[in-house]
Amino acid sequence: MVKTIEWVNGKVRMLDQSRLPVSVSYVTCKDYIKVAEGIKKLWIRGAPAIGIAAAMGVALGAQKIKANNFERFYKALQPVFSAILSTRPTAVNIEWAVNRLKNLLMSNRNLSIPKLKSLLIEEANKILVEDIEINKAIGRWGAQFIKDGDTVITHCNAGSLATGGYGTATAPMRVAVEQGKKIKVIADETRPVLQGARLTAWELMKDGIPVTLITDNSAAALMKRGEINLAIVGTDRTARNGDVANKIGTYSLAILCKEHGIPFYVAAPLSSIDFSIPSGEFIPIEERNGKEVTHISGCRIAPHGVKVRNLAFDVTPAKYVTAIITEKGAFSPKDLHKLQRSNTGLNSIRIKQKGPCRWK
Amino acid sequence: MVKTIEWVNGKVRMLDQSRLPVSVSYVTCKDYIKVAEGIKKLWIRGAPAIGIAAAMGVALGAQKIKANNFERFYKALQPVFSAILSTRPTAVNIEWAVNRLKNLLMSNRNLSIPKLKSLLIEEANKILVEDIEINKAIGRWGAQFIKDGDTVITHCNAGSLATGGYGTATAPMRVAVEQGKKIKVIADETRPVLQGARLTAWELMKDGIPVTLITDNSAAALMKRGEINLAIVGTDRTARNGDVANKIGTYSLAILCKEHGIPFYVAAPLSSIDFSIPSGEFIPIEERNGKEVTHISGCRIAPHGVKVRNLAFDVTPAKYVTAIITEKGAFSPKDLHKLQRSNTGLNSIRIKQKGPCRWK
Repeated sequence: MVKTIEWVNGKVRMLDQSRLPVSVSYVTCKDYIKVAEGIKKLWIRGAPAIGIAAAMGVALGAQKIKANNFERFYKALQPVFSAILSTRPTAVNIEWAVNRLKNLLMSNRNLSIPKLKSLLIEEANKILVEDIEINKAIGRWGAQFIKDGDTVITHCNAGSLATGGYGTATAPMRVAVEQGKKIKVIADETRPVLQGARLTAWELMKDGIPVTLITDNSAAALMKRGEINLAIVGTDRTARNGDVANKIGTYSLAILCKEHGIPFYVAAPLSSIDFSIPSGEFIPIEERNGKEVTHISGCRIAPHGVKVRNLAFDVTPAKYVTAIITEKGAFSPKDLHKLQRSNTGLNSIRIKQKGPCRWK
Repeated sequence: MVKTIEWVNGKVRMLDQSRLPVSVSYVTCKDYIKVAEGIKKLWIRGAPAIGIAAAMGVALGAQKIKANNFERFYKALQPVFSAILSTRPTAVNIEWAVNRLKNLLMSNRNLSIPKLKSLLIEEANKILVEDIEINKAIGRWGAQFIKDGDTVITHCNAGSLATGGYGTATAPMRVAVEQGKKIKVIADETRPVLQGARLTAWELMKDGIPVTLITDNSAAALMKRGEINLAIVGTDRTARNGDVANKIGTYSLAILCKEHGIPFYVAAPLSSIDFSIPSGEFIPIEERNGKEVTHISGCRIAPHGVKVRNLAFDVTPAKYVTAIITEKGAFSPKDLHKLQRSNTGLNSIRIKQKGPCRWK
């Protein structure tokens, strides 16, 4: 499996996904500014992956700080936090990762600065390793919803490239394949940045999982023909009530699923669930440069000066979501709030998953 | 208004729409083979426009035929008919135009061959002139559904470029503007061939009608925000029961409209209504080369060898259609069959439009 991001010799090495599938090239970031640039410019993207990048960016920023006590060290970290937090607004994983490192520092403020610097590197790497384990757990919980012979539609890329590895939305597909189920995947190309065409199709082909590429506007026609059995997508931020922010077009896909009686699943690591907000209305939606719509691979495909709306994400209300698949089980959106973490971290989850398959 | 197609000095001159908006260039077709190539390669597209092109192609093909009696002349026209009819399967206008010329010839078989040749040219030009008048009538019937301040969404291009002029779906918008209503248009970019981005945005900007370009997958998010009041699209073939074949993504847009309580109108000249088929199931749906999806402006945007489904059209069941706007009035899809033409042409329509606004 391709490595999306890793810490190598005191630097952060990331696959430049903006060049896929035409070229497989890597960027080595020597400072946090470069990591922030990578997140903004979509060299790395996908909620879990940019969470990892955020943590590594902070760890990288910390290494160069010269400070002889905790207060000065922490103060010097503020511009690093700000730069990383201001990269992209919608995915909660950036905030989640930065907060995790802040909490780590606060709990270890008695340690020496060199020790704290190493601790940040360790924690960033731990987030990466945990992420893969979390995805595998999502895969095990999610595979129950995929039957032998099913065709799964997915939108954007919530695959290994969007994560430390294995993927969120792709994890149930990978586990289903490991279980010997014969499945097919339909990848929405996902305009404007074409993550489905460039990334999902590429990584599934590499892994030998049969994938068919379609334009986003073809999904309904295939559903009507009975060619799609279920949908699984990722999420950039899911609210406490189960409203799901994800790549633009997800809401549309969910409506089409409802209209055709097709179950619609969201693969959501707990790090992407924002228990602090009651509903999707509170999720900030990034609007990106219109040039992403008017130009493809540098070629202009629309008139000079045309007005563009380029919403990068949309919010799918919980009522369209069959189940949210987390590393702790698959839950009806209305039960999601029961998973709410205490302040001390993920281990304090008190709710138990009752059974494996409560949703059609 | 730009001229999509015209008969000039014994040749057919068409705007090469595949190069828009980057370049405005024309192709001069000296024979019917070139006209057929133009239809296949989308130099000219849009159901009414390719109906006109089909008629001009047949007229052009007829000019070179050496025959001294009607039977030989008509027999020599067969390969011309076949070449034109086999260009694209979904739009009924090609068949409609060819049949119109065939009927004309049959009714005038006593005339001399030179006279028949001129008659074909006259008839092709008449189809062009009539088309513009028909569109203006559609505009007058359709404008009643657009209120001052409304934002209209449209898909693909059913504008002046898709017709002899004025457009079908754009006609109500143009009339609304002429009536002094302040309106805005949202143009779906319409993957894969991007007719919305390249053509609709271009022609509306040229005409000073405010237009905003979006990716196809953004429509639902804007509807949820209350930013869209109604949809008007064109059609390539509408069945007797009101099922509407149109550019891929139309069905999706119709479902999204239903889900958000937004009226969904189809602008359909009678030439695009196929009274010979009972429902949309009988409409042949063209599947085009996957390269339209994997390559944009010659640049590859998907992995080598990826499997693609490229349905060029979809069928929107009549139940999603608020009204079908023809040159004879706007009708509920279930009343459409009452418009059925007799064999003698359009003048025999006996149904009267009862009132201007029977649908929300």
